[in-house]
Amino acid sequence: MARPPSVSIHIRVRAPGRRACAEDIVRTVAEDLASGRLSRGLRLPPVRELEHQLGISKNTVQAAYDELVARGLAESRARDGVYTASPEPSDKDPSPPLGASPLDFTPPRVPPPVRRDPGQIELSTVFIDPELLPVAQLTDCFRSVLSSPGLVPFYDAQGYPPLRAAIAERLRGRGMEVEADDVVLTTGSQQALDIVGRAMSGKRVALEDPVYSYARLLFEDLGKETVPLPLDPFAGPPLDVWQDRIAAARPSLLYAITSYQNPTGYSYATYELVQLLEMSQHYGFALLEDDWGSDMLSCGEYRPTLRALGGPNVLYANSFTKKLLPSLRVGYLVGSPETRAVLVAEKRLSTLAHVTVTEAVVHEFLDRGYYDTHLRRVQTALDERYLACLGALEELMPAGVRWSTPGGGPTLWLEVPRGIDLARVRERLRKKGVTIEDAQGHFRGAPHLHGFRVTYAYLSPERLRQGLERLAEALGEEERRSA
Amino acid sequence: MARPPSVSIHIRVRAPGRRACAEDIVRTVAEDLASGRLSRGLRLPPVRELEHQLGISKNTVQAAYDELVARGLAESRARDGVYTASPEPSDKDPSPPLGASPLDFTPPRVPPPVRRDPGQIELSTVFIDPELLPVAQLTDCFRSVLSSPGLVPFYDAQGYPPLRAAIAERLRGRGMEVEADDVVLTTGSQQALDIVGRAMSGKRVALEDPVYSYARLLFEDLGKETVPLPLDPFAGPPLDVWQDRIAAARPSLLYAITSYQNPTGYSYATYELVQLLEMSQHYGFALLEDDWGSDMLSCGEYRPTLRALGGPNVLYANSFTKKLLPSLRVGYLVGSPETRAVLVAEKRLSTLAHVTVTEAVVHEFLDRGYYDTHLRRVQTALDERYLACLGALEELMPAGVRWSTPGGGPTLWLEVPRGIDLARVRERLRKKGVTIEDAQGHFRGAPHLHGFRVTYAYLSPERLRQGLERLAEALGEEERRSA
Repeated sequence: MARPPSVSIHIRVRAPGRRACAEDIVRTVAEDLASGRLSRGLRLPPVRELEHQLGISKNTVQAAYDELVARGLAESRARDGVYTASPEPSDKDPSPPLGASPLDFTPPRVPPPVRRDPGQIELSTVFIDPELLPVAQLTDCFRSVLSSPGLVPFYDAQGYPPLRAAIAERLRGRGMEVEADDVVLTTGSQQALDIVGRAMSGKRVALEDPVYSYARLLFEDLGKETVPLPLDPFAGPPLDVWQDRIAAARPSLLYAITSYQNPTGYSYATYELVQLLEMSQHYGFALLEDDWGSDMLSCGEYRPTLRALGGPNVLYANSFTKKLLPSLRVGYLVGSPETRAVLVAEKRLSTLAHVTVTEAVVHEFLDRGYYDTHLRRVQTALDERYLACLGALEELMPAGVRWSTPGGGPTLWLEVPRGIDLARVRERLRKKGVTIEDAQGHFRGAPHLHGFRVTYAYLSPERLRQGLERLAEALGEEERRSA
Repeated sequence: MARPPSVSIHIRVRAPGRRACAEDIVRTVAEDLASGRLSRGLRLPPVRELEHQLGISKNTVQAAYDELVARGLAESRARDGVYTASPEPSDKDPSPPLGASPLDFTPPRVPPPVRRDPGQIELSTVFIDPELLPVAQLTDCFRSVLSSPGLVPFYDAQGYPPLRAAIAERLRGRGMEVEADDVVLTTGSQQALDIVGRAMSGKRVALEDPVYSYARLLFEDLGKETVPLPLDPFAGPPLDVWQDRIAAARPSLLYAITSYQNPTGYSYATYELVQLLEMSQHYGFALLEDDWGSDMLSCGEYRPTLRALGGPNVLYANSFTKKLLPSLRVGYLVGSPETRAVLVAEKRLSTLAHVTVTEAVVHEFLDRGYYDTHLRRVQTALDERYLACLGALEELMPAGVRWSTPGGGPTLWLEVPRGIDLARVRERLRKKGVTIEDAQGHFRGAPHLHGFRVTYAYLSPERLRQGLERLAEALGEEERRSA
């Protein structure tokens, strides 16, 4: 039988600042036995351990243990160490079973992580087809970074400076006023949202409804009250309604996904961005722009972002997650000289820093010019998929179904007639080998839209068409059933 | 001059669900100009962009733009695109300068990141000497992981399953009841603390005083009230005082660094851990054990942890940060079947996941048996440094100075006479090329200790001795000044 672990004891030194002597050890053990702190039959620390810890000689510890044995307080067991004296035969073990109280937590309202089943056709995932991701080039960059400068021992809390500089330069090229010092690297853009939520002193956050559900859940998790601003992917945001809600609720922050909004696919018109800036000034709320999609795919040209129109007070979040490789988790948050210290402080409190080698790999990827080439290649492939998706929808969908035309990003909104039961459609699809998301989670209350998020960046055109065929079948079956 | 970015417009389709026609484009632009949403002299989206977005032919868009030009609403500029009609000469730009309101944030109480100056001798850093870190072996593991299985596109929110299994196995070998499913991989142990702080529904956290300052600041940042429990590295925790404070404040969680506490170096005696478990049951608070140090260095044997004594309700945090390479940021949190879902949910809300390749590299490092060999090598080197530190302190320190004898971990507590001005000592040291931390930040209120955190894992024995010589000088100078 393996011997039990030794107990840890704290030797009280009579003259603090002096080395412990044998008498200190004997006295501590004797007192701890007398007071019941030390039970009987426990293995005392190995001689070598006390010798090392107290910086004293082996002989001193041995002398103390010999003394304890001589006094009948301890016993030496061959090849097994020194134990406190055995319990008397009549002794019962008086100690109750130990255990800690459980954590009192609030059960999460977060849906469980998606388990990917390669057999299913996933119609709602916002990721890009892994076939289109630059795995070989990233591997090259890893090899290069590992050779030079090699793995560095320490991290930079704000993020690897050359990558921050490269990001700032790219954003300046898109008309945004950004310096390397304004950029905070994050673990995906999720952490960018977390940092802003933690940093803000106000209690209310306005956001689109429907919205990326992990944004809403995150702000709620941080104790914020969310103010839903209805978004209609066909008519755009009713800005007069938004203004009324904002005037009533007076949020401290408005979070908006300005291009290819998730889940509707909506992109704000420039005059809508301008109105948001005017409202921001009038009602005194800050703006957090999530620009996840604007370089994901498009037919080439960037339109002005909120940050470009509104200057450094607009907080800007983006990431390489969707475009490079989700598992690298490299995102960023852009602030201003005024917010830099607080944003870095919040990042340090939550994770201290991101992984330096990964940040250096993304920098290498940008520096070699791989990123622009990669984006062009991906854009071409995704543009093709988008058009194939539009074509298939037009060909296959029953009358009464309509969809938004984002022109980019991974997602469009498919609106179906109110009479169709969405849960039944999802169940029918599941049996047909197609997964489509329950879009309810993107809304704060009762949805004003009735449909699904349909994405076209993840599946090959053939698989996407298969998925849409089965979706059309399921919608038709449900329509007939309810008719 | 580069042409300006085009504006983004939202084409309103008269028959939603049908493709846009030229008339939809003309009508939208005309209405937006009439309503003032679109200003004059702005570049309209390129033909190709609308063609792609709306899934219509180039000719349709061109026909719409021609119509707008014919009506005088737009003008075509050679090689430059189509613009809304120029402003009348008499027009002044009526639009005020745009800008967003700033974020209203609470200024952080977090000290700025430490800037390492290689010329300075750092007496207070808790990191291990980079010379002792296994950079070459980790690089090998990276190369191996990049070849097979290679970079994977996706992440696992809970963390790379083989690494979770390997960690669980190691912990079981130390007498802890842990399954792979109980382990949540985190971005360093800092995120483990963040996750627990976010998951708990209670408002009060008890923690040692002094304590690792980023733990206290984190809990405060999450809106928790902290209940300080005084810790004396010479006498141990006065558990009767702790019990009174706990009975009065009724915290929901007690956070404790049970081995080589930061910053005091104190390790709990087994009977003290048992008393914490009894208090946990009696007063109904959960326990979060931070075990950063117990495998960092020692003379070999592990003693029982809170988790080993108290079972799965004890939340257990640890990391590879100090032992492997800080920049990899791989830590973990161990819960139970009851807490798993909530802990994973909180991790997903804050960062979604950690970097898969890094998790796979740490798994490879463990799997090859490198970790145990590395730990033995580091332990030998650090044991030597610890003893050298004790020897130098004994030889050099003026009378009245005393220090704790942790026997492991990177830090001990150096207590100096009350009459000595600690800020002046730090300033004298700075001039002598030695950095020593202001320990005030580790305390919640007025410190009951008067001294410094002195660390011995970061510096070579020679540099450490130099640092301690200058510390002894500075203390002597201040003592004479104040005498």
